[in-house]
Amino acid sequence: MNTTPLLPNFLAGRWQDGHGHAATLHDPVLGTPLVRVSSAGLDLAEGFAFARERGGAALRALSYGQRAALLGAVVKVLQANRDAYYDIATRNCGTVKNDSAVDIDGGIFTLGYYAKQGESLGDARYLLDGERIRMGKDPLFQTQHILSPTRGVALFINAFNFPSWGLWEKAAPALLSGVPVIIKPATATAWLTQRMVKDVIDAGVLPVGALSVVCGSSAGLMDQLQPFDVVSFTGSAQTAGLIRSHPAVAEDSVRCNIEADSLNSALLDPAATEGSEAFTLLVKEVVREMTVKSGQKCTAIRRIIVPLELFDAAAQAISAQLAQVTVGNPRSEGVRMGALVSMEQKHSVQHGIAELLHEAELLFDGSEVALVDADPATSACMAPTLLGHRDPGQATVLHEVEVFGPVATLMAYEDEDEAFELIRRGQGSLVVSLYSEDPAFIARAASELADCHGRVHAISPDVATSQTGHGNVMPMSLHGGPGRAGGGEELGGLRALGFYHRRSAVQASSAALDMLSSPSAAFGVTP
Amino acid sequence: MNTTPLLPNFLAGRWQDGHGHAATLHDPVLGTPLVRVSSAGLDLAEGFAFARERGGAALRALSYGQRAALLGAVVKVLQANRDAYYDIATRNCGTVKNDSAVDIDGGIFTLGYYAKQGESLGDARYLLDGERIRMGKDPLFQTQHILSPTRGVALFINAFNFPSWGLWEKAAPALLSGVPVIIKPATATAWLTQRMVKDVIDAGVLPVGALSVVCGSSAGLMDQLQPFDVVSFTGSAQTAGLIRSHPAVAEDSVRCNIEADSLNSALLDPAATEGSEAFTLLVKEVVREMTVKSGQKCTAIRRIIVPLELFDAAAQAISAQLAQVTVGNPRSEGVRMGALVSMEQKHSVQHGIAELLHEAELLFDGSEVALVDADPATSACMAPTLLGHRDPGQATVLHEVEVFGPVATLMAYEDEDEAFELIRRGQGSLVVSLYSEDPAFIARAASELADCHGRVHAISPDVATSQTGHGNVMPMSLHGGPGRAGGGEELGGLRALGFYHRRSAVQASSAALDMLSSPSAAFGVTP
Repeated sequence: MNTTPLLPNFLAGRWQDGHGHAATLHDPVLGTPLVRVSSAGLDLAEGFAFARERGGAALRALSYGQRAALLGAVVKVLQANRDAYYDIATRNCGTVKNDSAVDIDGGIFTLGYYAKQGESLGDARYLLDGERIRMGKDPLFQTQHILSPTRGVALFINAFNFPSWGLWEKAAPALLSGVPVIIKPATATAWLTQRMVKDVIDAGVLPVGALSVVCGSSAGLMDQLQPFDVVSFTGSAQTAGLIRSHPAVAEDSVRCNIEADSLNSALLDPAATEGSEAFTLLVKEVVREMTVKSGQKCTAIRRIIVPLELFDAAAQAISAQLAQVTVGNPRSEGVRMGALVSMEQKHSVQHGIAELLHEAELLFDGSEVALVDADPATSACMAPTLLGHRDPGQATVLHEVEVFGPVATLMAYEDEDEAFELIRRGQGSLVVSLYSEDPAFIARAASELADCHGRVHAISPDVATSQTGHGNVMPMSLHGGPGRAGGGEELGGLRALGFYHRRSAVQASSAALDMLSSPSAAFGVTP
Repeated sequence: MNTTPLLPNFLAGRWQDGHGHAATLHDPVLGTPLVRVSSAGLDLAEGFAFARERGGAALRALSYGQRAALLGAVVKVLQANRDAYYDIATRNCGTVKNDSAVDIDGGIFTLGYYAKQGESLGDARYLLDGERIRMGKDPLFQTQHILSPTRGVALFINAFNFPSWGLWEKAAPALLSGVPVIIKPATATAWLTQRMVKDVIDAGVLPVGALSVVCGSSAGLMDQLQPFDVVSFTGSAQTAGLIRSHPAVAEDSVRCNIEADSLNSALLDPAATEGSEAFTLLVKEVVREMTVKSGQKCTAIRRIIVPLELFDAAAQAISAQLAQVTVGNPRSEGVRMGALVSMEQKHSVQHGIAELLHEAELLFDGSEVALVDADPATSACMAPTLLGHRDPGQATVLHEVEVFGPVATLMAYEDEDEAFELIRRGQGSLVVSLYSEDPAFIARAASELADCHGRVHAISPDVATSQTGHGNVMPMSLHGGPGRAGGGEELGGLRALGFYHRRSAVQASSAALDMLSSPSAAFGVTP
């Protein structure tokens, strides 16, 4: 008999073990089995109906302000159990404490942000969208747009790299909107998600049915979706295609938010010189992005675009700092970068590097770096690798293949237009960062690149200490990107509520609109 | 040799005849052939690239204000040719003058509306979205969301019922956004679309590549789409499913707007009595909706929800007015309702009525009505038909099958909650109208039904003369609906520009954001 604990699912208001085959989660550093998960045999139809009807009705009976208070209560529960989450992250994600914090405290911070934003919406049960507009000469008949919570469930199919943040950055706006959540975490790191949900459920701070968790296979989940449900997916472009082709989305218009691959860029101002402030800021940010969470962030820098004359200097400066990064067992003193999430991911990244090396040169070879307290053969640890290309306009794979680990490619450009063109070769990314001492360059580059990025992050010397980081997703800014990045939109303050609401134009007499507008809250942008 | 004129397509900046098989458009009243269309053999790749590169670059080089002026110039061209459009509509759509106006003047009005709205955006080339938001304690680093025109083409695959309005309600916000348009009208009524595009092209008021038209088969059009293109479709749920499953949408995240089936409702206040103002307003609006354009409007009333005790009175009152409607050749004096668009549609509607009659009773039989100056055997004319069901909670087909013609079903309800439940059985509709003398009922019903309708239209005695009509789509209000209605959003004033823009969060120092924000226009709601 298998003695590795089987994590129960929470569905239809009760804890339920899956049956049949269970997947085992491992410690990516030590290789030891940790827990098992299974969704086999669950009555999904019952679970979705329970969430939709019981959870949805309970949440919609509350005002935004009351739901914001629920989020605040969830924050308290999670804060009280932080130590357990860090322990799980070390064991199951193989991350050092700082990297675990990005996921755990990042998730709690985002929840707290929405708890506070939601307060401002007060007693309303739907949101006013814009002002009343006259329909003709007679001012008596007007149109008022409103946003109403959708009467369905929100299904989240999440990625392995953010078992905490990935849950809460989606769940916070959903719950605040009055929409119950069913979370299906990625199997490799499902433990942390399941544990957080368990703590929240056990604490009894949410209405029953408002939050459910299904661990293991996602088979059958999409089949449960009905026209007023929504689905949000973070993961591979391939799976994204399957989700969007599913009859629920293709035929029943189930609303779908996708975050897929992204070859994010960092762009150094053409006016930069070796050792200039912009140069130094770029090098520092690139090294941070390549190493935080071992580069397993969808927002991490994958392409570093520098003036041709600074190519060698940048290669040297980045390589020198990468050489200082100690990689290995996150439990060991002085280790700055832990493991990838699994041996499977390690092999995938190694394979990806080999693919990029068909086009790129090797500037810093992570495979040569000795690991601290970790067996290179059995641990998923790997040191960062820097690749390069001096004429990247000729490259193809470098602009198309995202290697999801501590890997980036330095690319040279000759003039500003070529730099923009190279960045656009990503066909839509989550984020581009700009490094410059010139506000005019930043404004120009931002307006040029905004249409193909969900976020433009500009680092100049005056904000060197206050800037929030290329790869950090802040809840007040949009997260998502067009094209290859999946076309989705998350966060962006109260904009995130839009996905969980339906917009409707109410055309009526002033008397009726006066009653409709009070009590209700304006859907403004966060102050 | 076929002497029916072949309409050329405008693609890649030149007029091009299709080759191979051409489809013939007919007069639906007389049955005579009018013109032929074919898209066979066109080099679509060249055409899309031309629009994307030449048309897009030319439009993006202009400010919103300049593009608004282009829309104004298009309005003038169309107004100068109105007589020709009415002539084509009579011949190809079989509509009476008032019904042709809904399409032709409705389209011109919508264009004019966006010309005026666009003026207010002035010199900007992208739009500010909301206020600047601080990212932390230091006010120097903030986030500013902006909306940038997408650098792709807008492909419109349109329905047969609005060859003019359907083009311009989509093209106006696209062109104002700086996005070139490729229109593929429905074959049955493509003539009017083609002629309007031809007049605009011949007048030279738009940059070359900004507007293209492809008539005939839509084969291969979706294959041309790239990640920054968008596609907007109005038509059947079945085709909508194919579009959303196409790799361009499913895999490349091409943004997709769909308007599909809709079983719109009209709801009479439970407090209404026979002959009360609300009752009378409902009867009048229902008759208008059933007969305008022979009920061939996606927004037309399909389900009439009245208190059980008023079922017979409503049936009588509506039937009495339907009996007054003269149906036949639109060229004949006194004819109020012309033809359906084609014999195929007439057969489809007859088949649909037969399907509904499995559940409904026949309250007013259009097939008994004599046609004026039209042969029932060869013309696509048909008089309105009213069906009914006294216990519609038991019905299924009546809530699921949209019969796209002069057909509606009267349904009885016992209490307010049942009425709301019946309306929700439509699984998402474009519009619901409310008939009441009580602003409190209107506000309550609107807030209850808004989440499953793109528009709630309330008719009370005080706005009896100024209300804009259940089925009329006004450009300042949202048009679209969730679920069965396709999940799309169009119009709604400047909200329509969102589909053609990409949102991006620019995180930067105050100095850079100051430069980014000027000159640019705030993305506000229409005044």
